[in-house]
Amino acid sequence: MKQDPKYLDNLRHSAAHLLAAAVTELWPEALPTIGPPIENGFYYDFDNLKISEGDLARIEEKMRELVKTWKSFERTEVDEKEAQERYAKNPYKKELIADLAGQGVTLSVYTAGAFADLCRGGHVGHPDRELKHFKLLSIAGAYWRGNEKNKMLTRIYGTAFEKKAELDAFLLQQEEAKKRDHRKIGREQELFLISPSVGAGFPLYQPKGFILWRELQNWIMREKEARGYQFVWTPHVAKSDLYKQSGHWQKYDAMMSPMKLDDEEYVVKPMNCPHHFQIYNERPHSYRELPLRIAENATVYRFEKAGEVNGLLRVRALTQDDSHIFVRHDQIAQEIDNILDLALHVYETFGFKEYKARISVRDPQDPSKYLGEKENWDKAENALVDAVKKRGMPYFVGEGEAAFYGPKIDIVVKDALGREWQLTTCQLDFVQPENFALRYISEQGKEEAPAVLHVAILGSVDRFLGILIEHYAGVFPLWLAPVQVTLIPIAERHGEAAQKAAAALRAAGIRVQVDERSESMQAKIRAATLQKVPYMGIIGDREAANNEVAARTQTGQDLKAQPLEQFIRRLKEEIERIR
Amino acid sequence: MKQDPKYLDNLRHSAAHLLAAAVTELWPEALPTIGPPIENGFYYDFDNLKISEGDLARIEEKMRELVKTWKSFERTEVDEKEAQERYAKNPYKKELIADLAGQGVTLSVYTAGAFADLCRGGHVGHPDRELKHFKLLSIAGAYWRGNEKNKMLTRIYGTAFEKKAELDAFLLQQEEAKKRDHRKIGREQELFLISPSVGAGFPLYQPKGFILWRELQNWIMREKEARGYQFVWTPHVAKSDLYKQSGHWQKYDAMMSPMKLDDEEYVVKPMNCPHHFQIYNERPHSYRELPLRIAENATVYRFEKAGEVNGLLRVRALTQDDSHIFVRHDQIAQEIDNILDLALHVYETFGFKEYKARISVRDPQDPSKYLGEKENWDKAENALVDAVKKRGMPYFVGEGEAAFYGPKIDIVVKDALGREWQLTTCQLDFVQPENFALRYISEQGKEEAPAVLHVAILGSVDRFLGILIEHYAGVFPLWLAPVQVTLIPIAERHGEAAQKAAAALRAAGIRVQVDERSESMQAKIRAATLQKVPYMGIIGDREAANNEVAARTQTGQDLKAQPLEQFIRRLKEEIERIR
Repeated sequence: MKQDPKYLDNLRHSAAHLLAAAVTELWPEALPTIGPPIENGFYYDFDNLKISEGDLARIEEKMRELVKTWKSFERTEVDEKEAQERYAKNPYKKELIADLAGQGVTLSVYTAGAFADLCRGGHVGHPDRELKHFKLLSIAGAYWRGNEKNKMLTRIYGTAFEKKAELDAFLLQQEEAKKRDHRKIGREQELFLISPSVGAGFPLYQPKGFILWRELQNWIMREKEARGYQFVWTPHVAKSDLYKQSGHWQKYDAMMSPMKLDDEEYVVKPMNCPHHFQIYNERPHSYRELPLRIAENATVYRFEKAGEVNGLLRVRALTQDDSHIFVRHDQIAQEIDNILDLALHVYETFGFKEYKARISVRDPQDPSKYLGEKENWDKAENALVDAVKKRGMPYFVGEGEAAFYGPKIDIVVKDALGREWQLTTCQLDFVQPENFALRYISEQGKEEAPAVLHVAILGSVDRFLGILIEHYAGVFPLWLAPVQVTLIPIAERHGEAAQKAAAALRAAGIRVQVDERSESMQAKIRAATLQKVPYMGIIGDREAANNEVAARTQTGQDLKAQPLEQFIRRLKEEIERIR
Repeated sequence: MKQDPKYLDNLRHSAAHLLAAAVTELWPEALPTIGPPIENGFYYDFDNLKISEGDLARIEEKMRELVKTWKSFERTEVDEKEAQERYAKNPYKKELIADLAGQGVTLSVYTAGAFADLCRGGHVGHPDRELKHFKLLSIAGAYWRGNEKNKMLTRIYGTAFEKKAELDAFLLQQEEAKKRDHRKIGREQELFLISPSVGAGFPLYQPKGFILWRELQNWIMREKEARGYQFVWTPHVAKSDLYKQSGHWQKYDAMMSPMKLDDEEYVVKPMNCPHHFQIYNERPHSYRELPLRIAENATVYRFEKAGEVNGLLRVRALTQDDSHIFVRHDQIAQEIDNILDLALHVYETFGFKEYKARISVRDPQDPSKYLGEKENWDKAENALVDAVKKRGMPYFVGEGEAAFYGPKIDIVVKDALGREWQLTTCQLDFVQPENFALRYISEQGKEEAPAVLHVAILGSVDRFLGILIEHYAGVFPLWLAPVQVTLIPIAERHGEAAQKAAAALRAAGIRVQVDERSESMQAKIRAATLQKVPYMGIIGDREAANNEVAARTQTGQDLKAQPLEQFIRRLKEEIERIR
């Protein structure tokens, strides 16, 4: 039974039943709706239920009491009429019943203990013995059937595991994740803010957040320039005709709404491809110039639902480290390898040690729905698989997941808490070169169409930064840290020496602040530690006299008094080494 | 007569009459409309005239012939009826006559030689003797009365000067300006492009233009950071309510049209002030923190008429080196001095040697129309004047030119051709602090409103770049040059040594290209010279064997063969020194 990959889902779905049983016993007027298992747990949505997080312990207690009587789940088939009568007072269940019956589904009710629920099945055999390690987690609002035009219901989230150790590990990770929440750290460290006057999903970077955001972008820009990428800049507004030519207007559902200038329709750009194609087409190209790598760190605007935006992770204004690589078909394999090389270098830099690739290829059952020549597709798909194999990268192939215009690779990485994030994407495209008549002159002097690779390594810089904040728990590596050193004069008389040392650090390109408050040295060390400043330099009589600092790290390591020059050298070396 | 500052206007207006006389003699069906003097010359607009630039010489010849008979301008007053009869076949003059008569203006006709024109006067006394040094310059389309809903007329531009030497100098400057046209150099050097698919006024930077644009921005950013500015980033889209709060929505006529997201109205930002106020207001401030300098190199979007956009000089997408400085009222004078210090440093860096300040103050006749306390205005206006005086900067005071919310300084600089460009602006603002409830806690523990300085030093980075392209005629200083060195292998066998040298230059942060075409050394030197690459490094047998380059400059100076290391050191020193 433990071998069944569905076991955890069944366990959690059973827990959802149990949750509904406890809630309806405690609040008989509550109307249960649906309660599926989800990744990492389960939920159940109720109408007519006004509770707070403080009630979760009570509900959990009731669940533990009830589960003792749940020896098994008993299935009973019911016809539509019987089902409708049973749920006469619950319009949500009635709607579900009508829908299911309309689709010709056999209706069933599952009973455990004294509680029965309309359900198609998927439970554990012996809830009283198996359903022991569960926990209710939180309450949220959720629209009935996810549609914001429907009524807002009360959703209770919980989780369940087979073993206590698994539950404990999960709860610990959850707790750690809460501490690392990038929105919380963003507020504490004054990195970014969301202003209701500007709009949901449009983050503003405060000075410290801007340093992180800029350092990340400068770093990826340098890495790309060293690999032959050429950077460009294109405006955030363009005629909507441009996106009609690319097909986004017709097919891309996150387009912002258009605006009128003169008598023409313009729109803020959701992506950069058609802009980069204008630059490619500005002059003719020879086969010798390919691969031609056009890159831009560009802010694009996408319509995400207001209810779905989340800090930096899901926004309406996102800055991508975008690039479009124009390649000959015989260069695809080598260029994919170059891209993986860069991606792996990025993951290594930030300490992401585990990753896997998803390769999206054609549906072998339906070859007709893909544009471009079969031979090119065959070669390209093989090139993608060969490239990840060559790099020894774990991967899986998603058959039928390719877009109609080409196969792609996405890479998912695990962060310090073991959570998975999709970062890099590399999409091959055989169709846009036709839409925009992209051409080069081949060695034989003929006009040929290149393939285009749409590549983002970090993906959205904003989202990547959000992930990094959580991955590092706000303790950034020295090269990224908004403030790299806090200087701490012990008494007021050391202030001048501290300012002199600060000037020397600044001249060496190091971001430094001086804590001149009239607080004790201990209080200042505590403050810098809480602000996650990587290094402190304490200056008392001896240090002031000898042009020294007593250095220590954010983690509390005492580096002893040392000449200021030595301290600067150490910092510069660390900055250079990491980046 | 020469002392009269209006003399040049009168001379040019006389020339406009002469132009109309010549045109109507050559093309009797042409309908003259209006012909005023303008800066640097004059124009006359005609309907019913289809000519090309090739016709200008003929017209000029006719003008020279006619002017001999123009002894003077004779004024005749006419009543409306008489005037309407005289211009019965010219609907433009008829419209003017009706308008002027409606305003109660006495109508007059001025006759010189055989040509009479409806005119309110302003001519030279003896055209046959005074009107000798003129030249027709170009033809353009222009809407009647500047309104694009009216008919497009044919405009002929010309100029006239008192002395031949002045005309010659002007024509030479014009010719030089044509060669330096930033749109022409932009195309030749592949710096930027305007794509009709993206839209007029929305330039796209190609890789080389992006380097210029980025280097400029990084440089001004470093200069500002060294002066205590803190950089932020804010999105390009915000709720239109934000601009209602700032008053731009009601008063600023270059707002883009709005777009709908969810059920709310959003707009691309025309300026950054209200965004930076959100950042300021995110936390309380102490008097100790002021001046607080928030800066952003931000792309803003402004509605300019399609017919008025021009290369990089006037665009719809412009990136400003914007900043908002929050100051106590007692800090205004010092902060203005800081700003002038930075501005002068910028002009010196780019070799702009002449500049003057325009200080816009209240209209003493109408003190009621200005918001804010009189005492603050008095102090602020004095502070502006004192600041420019202290710097020994030429200036003039524009009474009544201040906005209702505060006085300001604009600085106009002269480029290498003596043309004037407005760059830096510094606007004091007493009103937005109230609109956005900006506050700080004073030394006495009270809530006070800071003043805000809206400051852009370069102004629009795009426009500044356009000006620099013309100022430098495309020959950029080393630190800005998109390609800093071209390496020239003399024969194919030197290619490998050239690539090795290129790698060493690149590792030193220098932008280098290798010209590996199978062309002669002379042809390659010519190509690099035409591309305005500041340095060349030629590599033949001797240089390849000794790890040397034979260095030369774009201007043709021979720097002799030298060790590659020495060449790199020279370049790095020059880059560091200039920036």
